[in-house]
Amino acid sequence: MTDFEKTRRFFNLPEGMIYLDGNSLGPLPRSVPARVEAMIRDEWGEMLITGWNKAGWMAMPRRVGDRIGRLIGAPAGSVVMGDTLSIKVYQALASALDLRPERRVILSDSGNFPSDLYMAEGLLKSLDRGHELKVVAPEDVADHIDESVACLMLTEVDYRTGRRHDMPALTRRAHDAGALAIWDLAHSAGAFPVDVRNGKADFAVGCTYKYLNSGPGGPAFIYVAPEITEDVRPALSGWLGHEAPFAFDLDYRAGQGIDRMRVGTPAMLQMAALDAALDVWDDVDMDQLRARSIELIDLFIAEVEARCSDVTLASPRDGTKRGSQVGFRHPEGYAVMQALISRGVIGDFRAPDIMRFGVTPLYIGEAEIIGAAKHLEDILNSNEWDTPAYRARAAVT
Amino acid sequence: MTDFEKTRRFFNLPEGMIYLDGNSLGPLPRSVPARVEAMIRDEWGEMLITGWNKAGWMAMPRRVGDRIGRLIGAPAGSVVMGDTLSIKVYQALASALDLRPERRVILSDSGNFPSDLYMAEGLLKSLDRGHELKVVAPEDVADHIDESVACLMLTEVDYRTGRRHDMPALTRRAHDAGALAIWDLAHSAGAFPVDVRNGKADFAVGCTYKYLNSGPGGPAFIYVAPEITEDVRPALSGWLGHEAPFAFDLDYRAGQGIDRMRVGTPAMLQMAALDAALDVWDDVDMDQLRARSIELIDLFIAEVEARCSDVTLASPRDGTKRGSQVGFRHPEGYAVMQALISRGVIGDFRAPDIMRFGVTPLYIGEAEIIGAAKHLEDILNSNEWDTPAYRARAAVT
Repeated sequence: MTDFEKTRRFFNLPEGMIYLDGNSLGPLPRSVPARVEAMIRDEWGEMLITGWNKAGWMAMPRRVGDRIGRLIGAPAGSVVMGDTLSIKVYQALASALDLRPERRVILSDSGNFPSDLYMAEGLLKSLDRGHELKVVAPEDVADHIDESVACLMLTEVDYRTGRRHDMPALTRRAHDAGALAIWDLAHSAGAFPVDVRNGKADFAVGCTYKYLNSGPGGPAFIYVAPEITEDVRPALSGWLGHEAPFAFDLDYRAGQGIDRMRVGTPAMLQMAALDAALDVWDDVDMDQLRARSIELIDLFIAEVEARCSDVTLASPRDGTKRGSQVGFRHPEGYAVMQALISRGVIGDFRAPDIMRFGVTPLYIGEAEIIGAAKHLEDILNSNEWDTPAYRARAAVT
Repeated sequence: MTDFEKTRRFFNLPEGMIYLDGNSLGPLPRSVPARVEAMIRDEWGEMLITGWNKAGWMAMPRRVGDRIGRLIGAPAGSVVMGDTLSIKVYQALASALDLRPERRVILSDSGNFPSDLYMAEGLLKSLDRGHELKVVAPEDVADHIDESVACLMLTEVDYRTGRRHDMPALTRRAHDAGALAIWDLAHSAGAFPVDVRNGKADFAVGCTYKYLNSGPGGPAFIYVAPEITEDVRPALSGWLGHEAPFAFDLDYRAGQGIDRMRVGTPAMLQMAALDAALDVWDDVDMDQLRARSIELIDLFIAEVEARCSDVTLASPRDGTKRGSQVGFRHPEGYAVMQALISRGVIGDFRAPDIMRFGVTPLYIGEAEIIGAAKHLEDILNSNEWDTPAYRARAAVT
């Protein structure tokens, strides 16, 4: 049994704040400050350069990768940490196109996170070989999988609406057409049970600062299916992905297995924060987490719909078809969200009109859900959102 | 006047250690632990997602970039932080090739850091348009600059020997031939005065964990000459380089100026460490630092040559032609270096036979230099290095 009171105590949650934005940046795990300080003072401070061996820094991207692997159904040795999610998307895409040289289409959808699409655009502009990035509506993806498609590139959970794709079904369809499947798990890893192995993903990538609570700018991960790893020729062929980085050869030779997806020197302070943050998962049953997430979101939808007449649900009503977030549309969603934030109810806004709430059972329960719905009701009834300050858009939303 | 006793107190230096590896990983600045802890506890912990605006995280890659800019002669707004050096090399190279579409040669040298060459190899393999990565001896670079060259890609200071290229002269020659110049300043920034503006570099990149003391995996930087920035079409077109990242448009539009070289979500804990580490430079006169570095290395060479008959200098004898490091060759250099490290004299080894020592006047003085030379003399005279343990190579050297 997962003890959600215990997991809640794992986090530092500011007094009076209802934090429904763990799908954007997870809260601080209480174990993080000491772990990062230990790396800084005892490892960097005392071991200096020898920390790469003595403190095991060099091995951490693989060791921590295995910890992530257990959350996404990836076998040991098939996940490695590093860089940002955008870079990992690029690596996966470049590899997939290289593995399907005769095909010219990357198939994605308009619910994908824009950075994934941007990275694809940049890659295709560089390649300049007549590839096409085909972006269709999420519900039309299956119909566009054909033998022109080199790879499917999808984010499993829509960052705005929370709509969840059927990874195994779409991947099967891609494979039947001879295409590869790249899955962005940014809103999946740590949100619900993921099984890249049974889902047959060829590549899976994700960030760790959302449901995995690694802090701002925490390292990304990449999974490559073991069957194809040795065929991958890295486009971003950095020295730490070399077969023998410290031989300092002039020519690149890809490292063994997943190591070839490493690029440059990994950000070790962020890695320490992530490593400490992952401890909470030792006590979590993912199926229970999923059940609780659906229960809490169902409750939130019921409360909001009962209290607020002028918002509409932007997410699937069927919990199994959602990630661990819910969105509501309101024409003045941006200003309403600012009013909520002023009251300490932290969600976020995604253009054009979605108020987005992450529901993270590790530290969110019924009290917060009902409290948030009440605040939203108050704000809408009183038009509290209708001020110039709340309408003025900040750089980061 | 730079007060080198004061700059020394800025750093935590373990008792009894002579640290001559600041060219690989700088020591811990005493200001770092508190600054990182403040970001973790007061910003991430209390502000959570709102830290991106409230704590100024989103602006830090540019703000810190300007601090680096002052050390390398770059105007405000022309440097941005993020990713790793290998990624920044890739961005610069892809941009340079795109700006010289009719040319097919990247010219580099065998003294370049291998990862720079590997990244070029990976890029050219992806492009598959008949480009050539031409790698010549460092002293032959000038002779190979001709109108086939799209860009020169050089590390100013040779990572093994410390040999320093003449940046302004080679860049002028490149420009005369219509080529662009990319300079890797990994062993330059913080090591001596750099002036990318007067040197006319088109792109400059570097890491911050060496002479800038940002800690393991600290963020890299990229400079683009303001004249060409608006012509750069980013190959790694991530969302934070978009003109309006939070509009979440489906199409990429490059951001204004240097912002377009941003890719994904930056590693903020590392950025905080770097920001704290940079404070020391407020009190440093770079010309004095350079003079002191040359003086200390000259002393080290004299001491080692007087004491040790079986090592040979691997670096230029003329201080103006070196970076801030010195190398000595010894056929058993690897084992000798392990013996030195066991005695607390920390340098490193670069294949095939170079013992490498970074000389960093911010925290190294005559006592350490003479001490290190004495230890080396002892080890060589006693054959203390000649044990199986010292000969056994570790993963990271």
